[in-house]
Amino acid sequence: MLFPVRGWAEAAVERYPHHWIAPVQAGRFRRLARSEGCRDVVFVGTAVRPPLAALRLDWLTLRLLPRVWRAYRGGDDHLLSSLAQGFEDFGFRVVGAHEVAPDILMPDGPIGSLRPSPRDQGDIALALALLDATGPFDMGQAAVVAANHVLAVEAAEGTDAMLARIAELRGRGRIAAPAGTGVLVKAPKPQQDRRFDLPAIGPRTVEEASRAGLAGIAVVAGGSIVAEPAVVARAADKAKLFVVGIKADHRTQ
Amino acid sequence: MLFPVRGWAEAAVERYPHHWIAPVQAGRFRRLARSEGCRDVVFVGTAVRPPLAALRLDWLTLRLLPRVWRAYRGGDDHLLSSLAQGFEDFGFRVVGAHEVAPDILMPDGPIGSLRPSPRDQGDIALALALLDATGPFDMGQAAVVAANHVLAVEAAEGTDAMLARIAELRGRGRIAAPAGTGVLVKAPKPQQDRRFDLPAIGPRTVEEASRAGLAGIAVVAGGSIVAEPAVVARAADKAKLFVVGIKADHRTQ
Repeated sequence: MLFPVRGWAEAAVERYPHHWIAPVQAGRFRRLARSEGCRDVVFVGTAVRPPLAALRLDWLTLRLLPRVWRAYRGGDDHLLSSLAQGFEDFGFRVVGAHEVAPDILMPDGPIGSLRPSPRDQGDIALALALLDATGPFDMGQAAVVAANHVLAVEAAEGTDAMLARIAELRGRGRIAAPAGTGVLVKAPKPQQDRRFDLPAIGPRTVEEASRAGLAGIAVVAGGSIVAEPAVVARAADKAKLFVVGIKADHRTQ
Repeated sequence: MLFPVRGWAEAAVERYPHHWIAPVQAGRFRRLARSEGCRDVVFVGTAVRPPLAALRLDWLTLRLLPRVWRAYRGGDDHLLSSLAQGFEDFGFRVVGAHEVAPDILMPDGPIGSLRPSPRDQGDIALALALLDATGPFDMGQAAVVAANHVLAVEAAEGTDAMLARIAELRGRGRIAAPAGTGVLVKAPKPQQDRRFDLPAIGPRTVEEASRAGLAGIAVVAGGSIVAEPAVVARAADKAKLFVVGIKADHRTQ
């Protein structure tokens, strides 16, 4: 049973059994989930902090307000762990998407037929080091590096918007590295609770990376989700991009 | 005598005595600067790495090509220090803009009548810590933090584009912190050669910060340039933003 959240989920989820809920509409969720016999809860996708005006309060939420407010004021990780704690207090078990569907985790090595060049590998290493440095700040989990030069770091805008920015900067001649150079790198945060908000890529990421003129995409194997890997591989081959799962042994996990 | 660089400088510089040059057009610059009797060189503005196709080669540049190429492959700092070294090899002395015009350096304390609130000060501290962490990666020198949450980090896009992004995200309801919260923070990199590319703000920065719904702007006092401070102060008061020069004692300088 899906509980798509208004403003976050796409209408396409209505193909599956579902109940729409509003952000933090705790009472409605608990009532519906219990009546459907749900015991485990899996978070899918990213929690975007909605404007307060979009919240639909119910009685249970009102009781939880101090906690909601504290969650709001922290970073993404804090918001999500508060959410998870809330679900567990209701008696649900919060499990990671990869625990119920392990095949969505990025494997080690390339998906598709291309591989990163030595220069790409240098760009990947620089991006991983940068994401390690920004990890404690509880922000984005993605960066673009081209020819040893950091082009973009993700924060509130999301990966697609970051890639669109690279495409636009390239179009205006503001990036020296020629088309076909540069790597999008996504990695989980060092302190990340792997039950939610693992970095994810999908066919659309390949499209956007191609439009941004990148050489490829690298994500941490076992620590990232790849939606529709077969489609991603075909899209990557067609766009002449590599998509690779990388080890991140140097990371403290 | 100004030597505006095509593609970087605005046409408005033509009000002043000038000779246009193309990026890395070393021979033309050396000939003209010598015939004008120039001895000191001041870099004003930021070097944007132009696409290779935009470069106009001359004989001297050709001789310097290996160095130009190496400069291209490094980060911004590397590019600029290579440039400066090149000028010094020609017998020019490279001096910082603030050495010839010390009044353009940001003073300590507020410009204009508003001051940061305690919450703003928390956001400023978080942004400074983040910029410290990203400093070694030789990328942007600016970040936006709102209500203890990192909204944006600058890399290749520049400060104005980063602020436009915040305005756009706010317009689409993707940022929870209400309008009137959030601070743009600019700081020099820890290892920065202060002769060039100091972080800079001007009236346009205030405009963009206002459009992005921020509470204010904080830049490191003595380590940032403020163009037209009186105009900046008036613009800040009108937009109800604070603009403040901050100490950055914790930074290793």
